[in-house]
Amino acid sequence: MKTYDFFAPTRVLFGPGQLHQLHTLPMPGKKAMIVTSNGQSTIRNGSLETTKNELTQAGCAFALFNQVSANPLKETVEQGAQFARDNQCDFVVALGGGSVMDAAKNMAMLASQPTNDLWDFVFTENGKKQNIKNPVLPWIAITTSAGTGSEVDAAGVITNPETKEKIGVGGFEGMFATYAIVDPELMKTVPPKFTAYQGFDALFHSLEGYISNRHNPMADMVQRAAIENIGAYLPRAVTDGSDMEARTAVAFANTMSGYSMDVSACTSEHSMEHAMSAYHPSLPHGAGLIMISVEYFTYWINRHVCDERFIDMAKFLGKTDASDPMDFITALKALQKACGVDDLKMSDYGIEKSEALTLAKNARATMGGLFLCDPAEMPEADCAGIYERSWK
Amino acid sequence: MKTYDFFAPTRVLFGPGQLHQLHTLPMPGKKAMIVTSNGQSTIRNGSLETTKNELTQAGCAFALFNQVSANPLKETVEQGAQFARDNQCDFVVALGGGSVMDAAKNMAMLASQPTNDLWDFVFTENGKKQNIKNPVLPWIAITTSAGTGSEVDAAGVITNPETKEKIGVGGFEGMFATYAIVDPELMKTVPPKFTAYQGFDALFHSLEGYISNRHNPMADMVQRAAIENIGAYLPRAVTDGSDMEARTAVAFANTMSGYSMDVSACTSEHSMEHAMSAYHPSLPHGAGLIMISVEYFTYWINRHVCDERFIDMAKFLGKTDASDPMDFITALKALQKACGVDDLKMSDYGIEKSEALTLAKNARATMGGLFLCDPAEMPEADCAGIYERSWK
Repeated sequence: MKTYDFFAPTRVLFGPGQLHQLHTLPMPGKKAMIVTSNGQSTIRNGSLETTKNELTQAGCAFALFNQVSANPLKETVEQGAQFARDNQCDFVVALGGGSVMDAAKNMAMLASQPTNDLWDFVFTENGKKQNIKNPVLPWIAITTSAGTGSEVDAAGVITNPETKEKIGVGGFEGMFATYAIVDPELMKTVPPKFTAYQGFDALFHSLEGYISNRHNPMADMVQRAAIENIGAYLPRAVTDGSDMEARTAVAFANTMSGYSMDVSACTSEHSMEHAMSAYHPSLPHGAGLIMISVEYFTYWINRHVCDERFIDMAKFLGKTDASDPMDFITALKALQKACGVDDLKMSDYGIEKSEALTLAKNARATMGGLFLCDPAEMPEADCAGIYERSWK
Repeated sequence: MKTYDFFAPTRVLFGPGQLHQLHTLPMPGKKAMIVTSNGQSTIRNGSLETTKNELTQAGCAFALFNQVSANPLKETVEQGAQFARDNQCDFVVALGGGSVMDAAKNMAMLASQPTNDLWDFVFTENGKKQNIKNPVLPWIAITTSAGTGSEVDAAGVITNPETKEKIGVGGFEGMFATYAIVDPELMKTVPPKFTAYQGFDALFHSLEGYISNRHNPMADMVQRAAIENIGAYLPRAVTDGSDMEARTAVAFANTMSGYSMDVSACTSEHSMEHAMSAYHPSLPHGAGLIMISVEYFTYWINRHVCDERFIDMAKFLGKTDASDPMDFITALKALQKACGVDDLKMSDYGIEKSEALTLAKNARATMGGLFLCDPAEMPEADCAGIYERSWK
């Protein structure tokens, strides 16, 4: 067993109907900036109206910033931070999926800083590597998808199109949400395809964490729970979005996978996907992960660096008689087939096979940290090879 | 699946050697009151010296309050709070087991209040039911036993001999530890008997939680991890206290059982034991729980209120082929035998069989809340019956 350092101070209200409890919690401010996507889903399914009502019942004013796109951009975070200042909001309420939460927590951070350039606070070679000067605004996460676990972590994935970086930004003190409302009722209207993409994103957070060199007993526990629940329930949630038992199990798995990132880490698979969607922004993150996953995990199995962990994961996915690491690949493929995502093609998103080495270089340059969490070192050529073998 | 509300903001540093990381953390104050027991163990095993060195390296002064007994008293908490004021300590470091941590967190609370009577802040009929007036002092938990999970919860069990109450006190805002150091190296010197008592206390936190009507997915997860690890490793930790793999697994189980109390609850078994040791203070809490456990759980099995949950728990304890609720009792008895605690006698601690009804009344009067978490209602006569059948 290894040591761990677990810090996840967000109070989580989990379960069907929990959004209706929001007004009972002490609010961390007087005027909220509600952050949503630029789409219509929170209007159509009523969750925006419910959120407004809850804030009103709690005695809070609010202003709405509804401009966050999928794969949220640096520029949008800066617009949101300025919006918070202009409207004198003293806390942020994110109502949406990972993109919205990732953008919102960085808006909450940036809004109270003396400058409004997000990359001032980024620690890559293109960032100014500054620490925050002022305490961040408190924020509340209301998650409408089960994918990123962003409601219980302190960083967010933001894309800078100028530098071709799609990276984790934030992680400063005070950037954990005060509250996370994880209400599977809000996930009922997520379409099957995105339910699958998001569910697999959550799954990969835990699968990667389980083989990473950062594994530890706390991480093992949350990862097992996440993998078991997604293996057992994701196909049902994809097939029938109103299956609340399945939605609840997948939502729980997602939050556990969020803790996985707090207490251990993802591995290079996540860096590799970020490179793909940094160059091809129309590619959903979960879909990109699915495309490379079979070759990615097969690579590690062939290197025999953590055979027992793959056998464990096969069992967690329901293959209780697993005895060979490749049983995990069988189970992973079966789950992808059951969720209708076993034939995703990079070429459908404009990715060329010839980009493999470029992507491998970008993955390491922008998110090299996760390669350090791999179960062993992955040479650049091996990384490119995974892209090539995954290409279709 | 049910809803849950999980809030455990303590940053946990877990694993062998973690006490030596204390100085790397930002300290929550300038002068610590170090709280230890009135025994010699932290002196003999060097953990007090290490703690002082860590605080010094972190640039903090300290004063030592070494007066906490097992089953800590109201009066001791009040003395400690006055000590903190007199010595102008602005944070508290608890170095010890559950008694020390429970006392220390209440000292941290009481030290900043305008009055020094702990029962002003107690919500039983004998308490003044006041809310705290001022923010509590921050405190750091350094746990030297694996039993109470007190390092990750916000209340502490304190005994008031005048009122014959041994109850949970505290739970106010700010009473979670800032940091918890869970370092199994510090547990190596716990004698076998107490290793067993404490390990069973941790086990019962999770067993009770698992059958309670507050069960939910997060609770199920931490309870399973706790029960599995104690079932597999407690006999080894009892047999050989220097078996670090076993100590680490049991320490982990203990902290997970602490989370169990944050996100679900114990049941009336805990109320019943508190009554026993309130009347018979020489009885260790874990020993008292063990004495009543077989009859307590058999009672619920005979009522068939949660058969499947008992089968689950039998499996978690290693009886993988369990199919009958009573398989759980078989597994529980086997574990008690393996830990050398299968023949504890109430009469050895001066408890008379005729006290059964008195104890049943006290359990409900002082800690009636936990009866509300039982899987069904337990009439007073049934409660007395469990004591009687357990008596030897």
